Amino acid sequence: MSGIVECVPNVSEGRRWDAIDRMADAIRSVDGVRLLDRTSDVDHNRSVFTFAGPPDAVEAAAHALVDAAFREIDLRTHRGEHPRIGAVDVVPFVPLAGTTMEECVAIAHRFGRAVALRHQVPVYFYAKAATRPERVRLPDIRKPQYEGLAGVIATTHVPDAGPSKVHPTAGAMVAGARPPLIAFNIELDTTDVKVAKRIAKEIRESSGGLPAVQALGFELTDPPRAQVSMNLLDTSQTSLARAWHEVETRASADGVRILRGELIGLMPLDAAVQVTADALKLDGLSRDRIIEAHFIE
Amino acid sequence: MSGIVECVPNVSEGRRWDAIDRMADAIRSVDGVRLLDRTSDVDHNRSVFTFAGPPDAVEAAAHALVDAAFREIDLRTHRGEHPRIGAVDVVPFVPLAGTTMEECVAIAHRFGRAVALRHQVPVYFYAKAATRPERVRLPDIRKPQYEGLAGVIATTHVPDAGPSKVHPTAGAMVAGARPPLIAFNIELDTTDVKVAKRIAKEIRESSGGLPAVQALGFELTDPPRAQVSMNLLDTSQTSLARAWHEVETRASADGVRILRGELIGLMPLDAAVQVTADALKLDGLSRDRIIEAHFIE
Repeated sequence: MSGIVECVPNVSEGRRWDAIDRMADAIRSVDGVRLLDRTSDVDHNRSVFTFAGPPDAVEAAAHALVDAAFREIDLRTHRGEHPRIGAVDVVPFVPLAGTTMEECVAIAHRFGRAVALRHQVPVYFYAKAATRPERVRLPDIRKPQYEGLAGVIATTHVPDAGPSKVHPTAGAMVAGARPPLIAFNIELDTTDVKVAKRIAKEIRESSGGLPAVQALGFELTDPPRAQVSMNLLDTSQTSLARAWHEVETRASADGVRILRGELIGLMPLDAAVQVTADALKLDGLSRDRIIEAHFIE
Repeated sequence: MSGIVECVPNVSEGRRWDAIDRMADAIRSVDGVRLLDRTSDVDHNRSVFTFAGPPDAVEAAAHALVDAAFREIDLRTHRGEHPRIGAVDVVPFVPLAGTTMEECVAIAHRFGRAVALRHQVPVYFYAKAATRPERVRLPDIRKPQYEGLAGVIATTHVPDAGPSKVHPTAGAMVAGARPPLIAFNIELDTTDVKVAKRIAKEIRESSGGLPAVQALGFELTDPPRAQVSMNLLDTSQTSLARAWHEVETRASADGVRILRGELIGLMPLDAAVQVTADALKLDGLSRDRIIEAHFIE
């Protein structure tokens, strides 16, 4: 088992389907890589690709995507609601079964330096690949955006790799390593969105709740229902099972049942193993107790 | 993804470690196959190997094991407490991620016929690979044992493949296909074994409980504790989550909590996906929502 790495690049193009198709094709052109998801948002004018495979293949596919995106995108004419600093805005590498965060940090650094050299693009390292504390959080790096970067690139925004000069069409790029993100919603058996909003506020990290949890309360309309929508940013800090129990306990206190969960996209194997361990009180259950985990390429 | 098949042969040798090692080596000699577990019982004079891999490789490894076992074992001198009919007593093939029961039935038939031809050994097909109703259950086939088989091989025990003549040293062989078996125990927070025995009786299929569930109540001594010990023979009939809930509900009615679960050996990915779906109310969660499942060779 050599292990699997996931890569979730965000590119600044969400409108020209032919261009987005060519980027997807570039990713798929690398043997061993599987494109698991692609999502484009017209208002944001932005696309997110999710692909995975053996580490070397994923790194090669990230380069293929950069080549395609830099050909297709000209930031001088790009407009969209989402903040962005580059044509390839951010490229996180994510360790899955059989790979480690350290490996992903090394990939992010090698990949970022290679892109900087090949394309003369300034590159910043963020999250677990950050080399200074003020670059851990993506919004801090992206704050000046493409239009404002030239003004700060010699002061607060000296790049971690590449020239201190904004690339005219490609802007800059952020690369990094982070744990897998799980997008998970819980539908409550009530139409009262206040319940969902209150629970979301209580459990999210930003208001003193669970570590590495983002949460919002939403009102669904068809059928009418309150929903707690969550991003779990690091299941080693707060697992799916823990988030579930915290929502369930708080809903129960209001006499509200959970109707169903909803997984957006995919989840890593380790997250399912964690949930299984919790549900069956199997302390220390690990991936190697799953037969097929021994056959992940 | 070409899929994974598991094979769990039982051989009639549990005492001579060097002979058992040579059988394990035979299995491991096939590229792509992983020997996941081996268990030998001296009293039973019997060993169980658990290996898995791509279907072709697993079939080849089963042949390699048969060759080694037939060289090592002479049933004329074999003594042990466990009923047995052959040197290689029973060879079940089990579909895991990406393979079907139909494929495993085909493998069992092809493998059984090939062993019959190559070694002149009578072969019976059981479980999902049975070709007649009276051969579905293994104990029915094995009942005469090696010593009694010659007396019935021309009447009730005409083989499904191979000669109607017991092989002097190898006896006969049973091959088949079945769902994965999960061996799972639940420890109760009580020393009263009667609670465990009553729950086991209520949930096991043989006394009208849950389909495809075998269960017994045991008294653990260190620390003293009551345990419900289960074999789940087909999780499409009764899932791990269902078995857990049934034990929990019955224990609760007696005011007894579940202390912990215990998984013996390994579990298939689909079983963990089932438990995750139940715990998070994710209707229809399937293996393809697990990222790494797309990379099972």
